[in-house]
Amino acid sequence: MKELIEKADILIEALPYMREFSNKTVVIKYGGNAMVNKDLMASVLEDVTLLKYVGVNPVIVHGGGPVISNNLEQYELETDFHKGFRITSQEVMQVVEKALIGEVNTNLVSLANSLGIKAVGLSGKDNQMILAQKCEMDCEVELGYVGEVDEVDPTLLNSMIDSNYVPIVAPVGTDKEGNSYNINADLVAGEIAAALEAEKLMLLTNTEGILEDPEDKSTLISRLKIAEAKQKIEDEIIVGGMIPKVNACITALEKDVNRTHILDGRLDHSILLEIFTDKGIGTMITK
Amino acid sequence: MKELIEKADILIEALPYMREFSNKTVVIKYGGNAMVNKDLMASVLEDVTLLKYVGVNPVIVHGGGPVISNNLEQYELETDFHKGFRITSQEVMQVVEKALIGEVNTNLVSLANSLGIKAVGLSGKDNQMILAQKCEMDCEVELGYVGEVDEVDPTLLNSMIDSNYVPIVAPVGTDKEGNSYNINADLVAGEIAAALEAEKLMLLTNTEGILEDPEDKSTLISRLKIAEAKQKIEDEIIVGGMIPKVNACITALEKDVNRTHILDGRLDHSILLEIFTDKGIGTMITK
Amino acid sequence: MKELIEKADILIEALPYMREFSNKTVVIKYGGNAMVNKDLMASVLEDVTLLKYVGVNPVIVHGGGPVISNNLEQYELETDFHKGFRITSQEVMQVVEKALIGEVNTNLVSLANSLGIKAVGLSGKDNQMILAQKCEMDCEVELGYVGEVDEVDPTLLNSMIDSNYVPIVAPVGTDKEGNSYNINADLVAGEIAAALEAEKLMLLTNTEGILEDPEDKSTLISRLKIAEAKQKIEDEIIVGGMIPKVNACITALEKDVNRTHILDGRLDHSILLEIFTDKGIGTMITK
Amino acid sequence: MKELIEKADILIEALPYMREFSNKTVVIKYGGNAMVNKDLMASVLEDVTLLKYVGVNPVIVHGGGPVISNNLEQYELETDFHKGFRITSQEVMQVVEKALIGEVNTNLVSLANSLGIKAVGLSGKDNQMILAQKCEMDCEVELGYVGEVDEVDPTLLNSMIDSNYVPIVAPVGTDKEGNSYNINADLVAGEIAAALEAEKLMLLTNTEGILEDPEDKSTLISRLKIAEAKQKIEDEIIVGGMIPKVNACITALEKDVNRTHILDGRLDHSILLEIFTDKGIGTMITK
Amino acid sequence: MKELIEKADILIEALPYMREFSNKTVVIKYGGNAMVNKDLMASVLEDVTLLKYVGVNPVIVHGGGPVISNNLEQYELETDFHKGFRITSQEVMQVVEKALIGEVNTNLVSLANSLGIKAVGLSGKDNQMILAQKCEMDCEVELGYVGEVDEVDPTLLNSMIDSNYVPIVAPVGTDKEGNSYNINADLVAGEIAAALEAEKLMLLTNTEGILEDPEDKSTLISRLKIAEAKQKIEDEIIVGGMIPKVNACITALEKDVNRTHILDGRLDHSILLEIFTDKGIGTMITK
Amino acid sequence: MKELIEKADILIEALPYMREFSNKTVVIKYGGNAMVNKDLMASVLEDVTLLKYVGVNPVIVHGGGPVISNNLEQYELETDFHKGFRITSQEVMQVVEKALIGEVNTNLVSLANSLGIKAVGLSGKDNQMILAQKCEMDCEVELGYVGEVDEVDPTLLNSMIDSNYVPIVAPVGTDKEGNSYNINADLVAGEIAAALEAEKLMLLTNTEGILEDPEDKSTLISRLKIAEAKQKIEDEIIVGGMIPKVNACITALEKDVNRTHILDGRLDHSILLEIFTDKGIGTMITK
Repeated sequence: MKELIEKADILIEALPYMREFSNKTVVIKYGGNAMVNKDLMASVLEDVTLLKYVGVNPVIVHGGGPVISNNLEQYELETDFHKGFRITSQEVMQVVEKALIGEVNTNLVSLANSLGIKAVGLSGKDNQMILAQKCEMDCEVELGYVGEVDEVDPTLLNSMIDSNYVPIVAPVGTDKEGNSYNINADLVAGEIAAALEAEKLMLLTNTEGILEDPEDKSTLISRLKIAEAKQKIEDEIIVGGMIPKVNACITALEKDVNRTHILDGRLDHSILLEIFTDKGIGTMITK
Repeated sequence: MKELIEKADILIEALPYMREFSNKTVVIKYGGNAMVNKDLMASVLEDVTLLKYVGVNPVIVHGGGPVISNNLEQYELETDFHKGFRITSQEVMQVVEKALIGEVNTNLVSLANSLGIKAVGLSGKDNQMILAQKCEMDCEVELGYVGEVDEVDPTLLNSMIDSNYVPIVAPVGTDKEGNSYNINADLVAGEIAAALEAEKLMLLTNTEGILEDPEDKSTLISRLKIAEAKQKIEDEIIVGGMIPKVNACITALEKDVNRTHILDGRLDHSILLEIFTDKGIGTMITK
Repeated sequence: MKELIEKADILIEALPYMREFSNKTVVIKYGGNAMVNKDLMASVLEDVTLLKYVGVNPVIVHGGGPVISNNLEQYELETDFHKGFRITSQEVMQVVEKALIGEVNTNLVSLANSLGIKAVGLSGKDNQMILAQKCEMDCEVELGYVGEVDEVDPTLLNSMIDSNYVPIVAPVGTDKEGNSYNINADLVAGEIAAALEAEKLMLLTNTEGILEDPEDKSTLISRLKIAEAKQKIEDEIIVGGMIPKVNACITALEKDVNRTHILDGRLDHSILLEIFTDKGIGTMITK
Repeated sequence: MKELIEKADILIEALPYMREFSNKTVVIKYGGNAMVNKDLMASVLEDVTLLKYVGVNPVIVHGGGPVISNNLEQYELETDFHKGFRITSQEVMQVVEKALIGEVNTNLVSLANSLGIKAVGLSGKDNQMILAQKCEMDCEVELGYVGEVDEVDPTLLNSMIDSNYVPIVAPVGTDKEGNSYNINADLVAGEIAAALEAEKLMLLTNTEGILEDPEDKSTLISRLKIAEAKQKIEDEIIVGGMIPKVNACITALEKDVNRTHILDGRLDHSILLEIFTDKGIGTMITK
Repeated sequence: MKELIEKADILIEALPYMREFSNKTVVIKYGGNAMVNKDLMASVLEDVTLLKYVGVNPVIVHGGGPVISNNLEQYELETDFHKGFRITSQEVMQVVEKALIGEVNTNLVSLANSLGIKAVGLSGKDNQMILAQKCEMDCEVELGYVGEVDEVDPTLLNSMIDSNYVPIVAPVGTDKEGNSYNINADLVAGEIAAALEAEKLMLLTNTEGILEDPEDKSTLISRLKIAEAKQKIEDEIIVGGMIPKVNACITALEKDVNRTHILDGRLDHSILLEIFTDKGIGTMITK
Repeated sequence: MKELIEKADILIEALPYMREFSNKTVVIKYGGNAMVNKDLMASVLEDVTLLKYVGVNPVIVHGGGPVISNNLEQYELETDFHKGFRITSQEVMQVVEKALIGEVNTNLVSLANSLGIKAVGLSGKDNQMILAQKCEMDCEVELGYVGEVDEVDPTLLNSMIDSNYVPIVAPVGTDKEGNSYNINADLVAGEIAAALEAEKLMLLTNTEGILEDPEDKSTLISRLKIAEAKQKIEDEIIVGGMIPKVNACITALEKDVNRTHILDGRLDHSILLEIFTDKGIGTMITK
């Protein structure tokens, strides 16, 4: 009985956080290890289910790195990289699209629905929700069908949220003519959070957060302001794949999202821990 | 960090129960010790807050025994009892009404609102919600302004629930002419649960539940069917103040309420324990 | 038959006034003698019923002077006064609250419902509708639980009005922590009229209105502008209990209430006479 | 002041009737003298305005006898009659339609709007609201464009009522091909009351009601059941133009209209007198 | 089969125009020959039906020239003209009103309903939709009951459009006292288009449009800006009955109507041709 | 100009059909050649766009035969067939799912959106819309992840239709555990039509319809009743891939779908021809 009461106490402790996030939208970018480890995948979706039940509106954006590589291998398509971006021919794009929409997204939707979430899979092509163009600003050189977000139309997402569905979004954009573009999932999440005027953007990664010294976990930076973050990019403390994550946070913050987080997705229930406890984990970037 | 993750696990464990009760109405009768012990009072209202945040619609009905006695004393009004019912003159009724509506109800509403629930205090006189008559059927003799429920009009309660308020109801009824009646709060809760077609009726008491032998807690009866309950009243195993509680459950069950519970209100978070764990506590009466 | 036709003519004469007030909100402060004389009480509520039926939305605020004094006597609590304000300890406040909410309000609700109004009793504690603080601005010295209005949240009142209920409000406020405050009912009525952007505020009193010479009824002032009213307070022509009434009118007028009235509540149907005839009675204060 | 208070008392006396008819639909057939005497016309419309303001939904159906005759004369068209029905060629029908829709209806609408009712003129041709066929059942012989009601579609009327308009209906029907038919206005009113499931049907006439002896006003029949009314038609006590009035009442009663009345339209405010006083006037026919 | 496919191709060609006008309001003035030739009348209404089915909201305003003259003749009323305006006594006005509302409007409504449009006939007197005054500004001298539009209240029209009815409006206005005014139908159409903020105003005439040389059809002016149109009135290239048409267009354009057209109503399906093909016909006036 | 008027006439001819299908749902199965020939694909989607604009609600279900085979080849996966069904291992199912959802569906959605339809891609896994089980009833032997429909939940489709989106559905089902099943697209279309209580089900094929003699196009059967269709299956006149098409029609007809069609999808605009002309094409099966 004592154990039962302790359980009840823990539910009660979460109350103030439920109150704070009630009826707010939270955009969650879900990628890296969390997507290949089946148990972590289930753990993340359980967190999403709980958010839904306590009145939060979660929107999930996923990446697809390893699955894409795996598919390209099966098709024996070799691709070159330029500064971390995959040079993407139309043939490659078709495989990427199949992997993201027909495999990663569809598997996530299956798992989510079997956990009792009313999940619906979407891509930026549905209702031309994510209008994209060839990546130039972010990518410096033309890379084929690597895209950057031109505009997110939140109508379809909002009608899903209003009908109590959880949208799970594949990071594929489209132009008006119907060409597909592969877009960095972090940036898609940032733009969606901005378009939905979400309360929070959470990017799950394979690290503890932003580290001053990438070799030393004890150098985790807990909080950053936009200006500080920009400085650290300039100072090359923030490098590589962390740059689009930080940029996604800045995009979101500049359009009325309140808080953005870079979290360790390898940790069980990192979403719940961030939302329902005082001990924020990972790095929080704010205005 | 380990402790944090255990907390997250406990939230996750509650998920299937949140799912089950999402958007359902639960009527809670709140009386006895839970009303005099300030800590228990807060604990019950915390539970109610949590129910509200996870999408359950709670309706609270309270009693008022000790506060009524205390008020009558201050007025130096002595009252006689007949078979457990207080013989209630108009003068006594006025004090009872002041105690229930102007003290017990108003204090509960205050506490609930300070905990962040949008609570609104009501009595059966508002919109003539609880039509009552002199108690005859239940009471055998005429006892003055002791009433029994004639009909509950759920309109006002439903409009409160739809607007996301938590109604807190004092067990005072009225007749068409405007006379007030003091009604047993358990019976009021049963009738309200019936009128609202609630999912669950929970009666908080000062005992563990229904005991075969009132002296021996190990004889707690976990489950009873309606017929068995009626038999135990006839056999005088269920006696005294437990009779209206059991009758309230039967009233509710006969009008589409699914489950009814007689719970130990002296236990911290008994409401959450009953709803969010497998180990039902107290006595459950079902069809 | 001729008499019948005269009756019909009188109904017809009221038409232009029905047109003017259709679907408008009117806040009525109800106090003094009108509350102790049973016949006057019924007469006021009949007026309210008629307003409701011809499409006006009445909101009633009541005081409670004599009932409060009576209750304090029964509890043998003696209280001191400072410049007309009762010094209110927590113990006194509890009796005041019981008297206002558990006796005056509840009796008015009963009477109103038996006349066919769908009345619901409220206090400022419901949904923390009237946030209050210790009276300092208006009272000069700290007087215990005598409060002044900090803010009125009209949400609950508006949802009542939209559902066709007539709210009857006891002048008890609350702070965020749940402490209760006794507030001058005239001021509460003024603040509620302001928050609801009511069409009209009507304060029923025990006098003919504002008199130049309180001893001479023929010196009734029919109309006053805000500036004139303020001047007459400075000149001590308006004194005593009339000051908060005039201040309530000014509060309401400064927030888009169109007309405010101080009426003789001892007169049968003074509300109807003011609204449905050309002969305004009492004193009207306008911008 | 005493006179004022008597006025207020009369308003108060009407309260129970307001309560009874609140939000109910009342269909009023308006014809005969009430339509030629300007003062009576205004008096009827004032009654309608008052009904509207106290929450009743009036629907007006008018006849047009004298205006039609007057128009036919101006066109120098002579017409024959068969058992009280005018034999109606297409040419005659065109004049009838112009008189009913372009003169009687339009004048009533003007007058009503200038009194502050939101009146909208309609005929059975709008949205093919009144489908009609050549009168055979009621008329025995074919009479050209004299019609009888086939079906009333209440959609347009209901959308008018929901938007708070007062529909004023000319008794012109149409077939699917668009031919117009002149229909007895009493029968149209009866069918509309039936289709709207109105609370009351009121037919204004040029007599006191149904008289046992048409020469003797003291023989007014106050109440009739359907069966009695049918018997009196058979016995030829009810004859001539009174027959379609009685049939209209029967049609309405057989489809859930509660009460039907044949009233003296020459009396000022006969509608108000019938609705707002105990002394029913004229003849009431009930189930 | 080939023919069938060509038909399908033509439907497909209309698609971009359907898209453009979907859910937009189009006001159509319908007069002159189109009103006397039965086949043209049907052709216009078929066009309107099609507009309705592809999601456009048509509102029709009609004139009545020849029918009015015909009626005045039958009444043997002679009338004088001043600068193209008929001097209109009250007696004349009554005949005009009967002709417009009781004959032209009612016939259009019949025809439209038999084609499957849900048509409802209205005049400016319904709900005092078109407030008018004696024509002075436009007419220079007082001409009796010739009116000009003071204000159009779009409420009734909007509620009709929302309920999917097609309003057909007779150009009769009213003042607050209920007097009727005959108003130029082109001007009424322009004011209604302005009040509804319509997408398009289309005036059907008996000419090809505005001609530089009225004798030479090849001088048709396809497009005009407001300023050019005003200049051509000053230069007396635009004269006579074309002046109010051009003024109606200007009125509409100055209140957010996008495009206005003066079309040849003698041409079959001129409305569809204008809306669903690239080859605009007639004269278009734009900002 | 003459040509223009002929175009207008053709639009007008389509009117009665627009009327008939206004606001009705039509389910279109789209497969075979129509899916590999880019021009036909565009032609079908143009038809869908037009349906949408004239107020019909289209729902598209697609197959994927050739694309699936093509993908399996690229993966070098060989599959056996049993009575026309592909034996489907989990590995094969994954490729099938990618091909259907990540290639066929996504390409259709792109094309549709670039034509101006608000298209959203769905599969039976979204919100577990199509619950499936291993095919036994229809398939006789266990074939791995070949499924049959257990139940279609129309909620998601209906909310899409209500928000004016055109759903494009891939024929992939799911069980409660989240396993995917490849289901015959004709049967999926039939079940969806049944669940939506659609007006019409149209199956586009590579033949003229059902032929008595498959070698002789002149033996096309224009109409069949359910009973006749069943007989022809028994008589082996209807064989092979035509059997599930006919069964899909029967499923739909037995649940309130009015008409079902097997059409020649190789023909340009076959959908429009079937809906908007009298000359039905292909085979219609009715109750």
